[in-house]
Amino acid sequence: MRIDIITVLPDLLRSPFEGSIMKRAIEKGLVEVHFHNLRDYTKQKQKSVDDYQFGGGAGMVMMIQPIDDCIAHLKSERQYDEIIYMTPDGETLNQQMANRMSSYENIIILCGHYKGVDQRVRDQFITKEISIGDYVLSGGELGALVLSDALIRLIPGVLSDETSALTDSFQDNLLAPPVYTRPADYNGWKVPDVLLSGHAAKIEKWREDMAYEHTKNRRPDLLDK
Amino acid sequence: MRIDIITVLPDLLRSPFEGSIMKRAIEKGLVEVHFHNLRDYTKQKQKSVDDYQFGGGAGMVMMIQPIDDCIAHLKSERQYDEIIYMTPDGETLNQQMANRMSSYENIIILCGHYKGVDQRVRDQFITKEISIGDYVLSGGELGALVLSDALIRLIPGVLSDETSALTDSFQDNLLAPPVYTRPADYNGWKVPDVLLSGHAAKIEKWREDMAYEHTKNRRPDLLDK
Repeated sequence: MRIDIITVLPDLLRSPFEGSIMKRAIEKGLVEVHFHNLRDYTKQKQKSVDDYQFGGGAGMVMMIQPIDDCIAHLKSERQYDEIIYMTPDGETLNQQMANRMSSYENIIILCGHYKGVDQRVRDQFITKEISIGDYVLSGGELGALVLSDALIRLIPGVLSDETSALTDSFQDNLLAPPVYTRPADYNGWKVPDVLLSGHAAKIEKWREDMAYEHTKNRRPDLLDK
Repeated sequence: MRIDIITVLPDLLRSPFEGSIMKRAIEKGLVEVHFHNLRDYTKQKQKSVDDYQFGGGAGMVMMIQPIDDCIAHLKSERQYDEIIYMTPDGETLNQQMANRMSSYENIIILCGHYKGVDQRVRDQFITKEISIGDYVLSGGELGALVLSDALIRLIPGVLSDETSALTDSFQDNLLAPPVYTRPADYNGWKVPDVLLSGHAAKIEKWREDMAYEHTKNRRPDLLDK
């Protein structure tokens, strides 16, 4: 997968891609991630990429020209599965969307900032609008990081043990059961006996029961899906 | 506000706090953010912080001892409003939660990694479990960044224009109306006439209508709240 991220703050994106699973996926050649600084595409004096909004009001708006030129440049080099805009009013990301999108070859992620992008960008260039949740962030950069991480870890070969992703929360509309590790007794707080029993079938049954109970208590909505 | 983030990957968190609004909030003295590397608290040989899960299965589990010691150290220095664990099965973050939490003085955010933390950590030390959405990420670090950003931008004095946050999506259960900036005509794609009219009341009415229409089309669930 190739991910092109268009942003006014490329430096902000750097460290999460330099650690953990995203770094390893890049080193293994399973993913390519490229940052594109919108300021390199503006034709405005003083490299500005935003301007006051028509009709007045607080907050600057990202201009169409630099975004148009950056996307046109990328599209001249390859085909994209989706041109994504991260925005709180987009379709809310969930695990099923991430599963589907993890097979894409090339995507562009445009990060909004300030008050957002000129609506004509959304009308003319964007093929998919995604929100990571019902809250407002200072820019689309964290959303782009979240989306990238959610997709990258699903690409075959990225996680060291492929079964690991399949037993995550949401993969079967159940939350994950509780997990424990050594010591078996810490300050008198003990690990459930069944997990120490060595009885594989009982452990499996306990985990299924706990996953179901946990989901019923916390997220009954998932059981209706 | 003081935010203490406990993590096995402090380097991953760095760049987002070195740019944009989070950086300015820190520079203005409105927020303090401290990273705590769990490896500094482990009593295990080889500085390990995780171990195999009891009962078998893929994925490592973060041990209770380093987390206990790190949290105990922090709690010995000050009182915390919440000790938060970022996990996909936590309460889903939304703007109302962010509004409430933005008045907190001190919070700890524990980032899970691998298969998660030993359940006894959650049972004994955590006061609030938060999810940023129904998808799985490779660790809690991106969740901690998202939560920090959502809270920090709401602290009075952080955004340059305080009205700016109040007109965001979700603050009144409506999505934001479309925004436009110059030029008024780009490739024949035009800005709606009303925004160029200079008629403040008409513009206000148009924005309200558009916000309502947009919400009805995309997120009718918000209108029922």
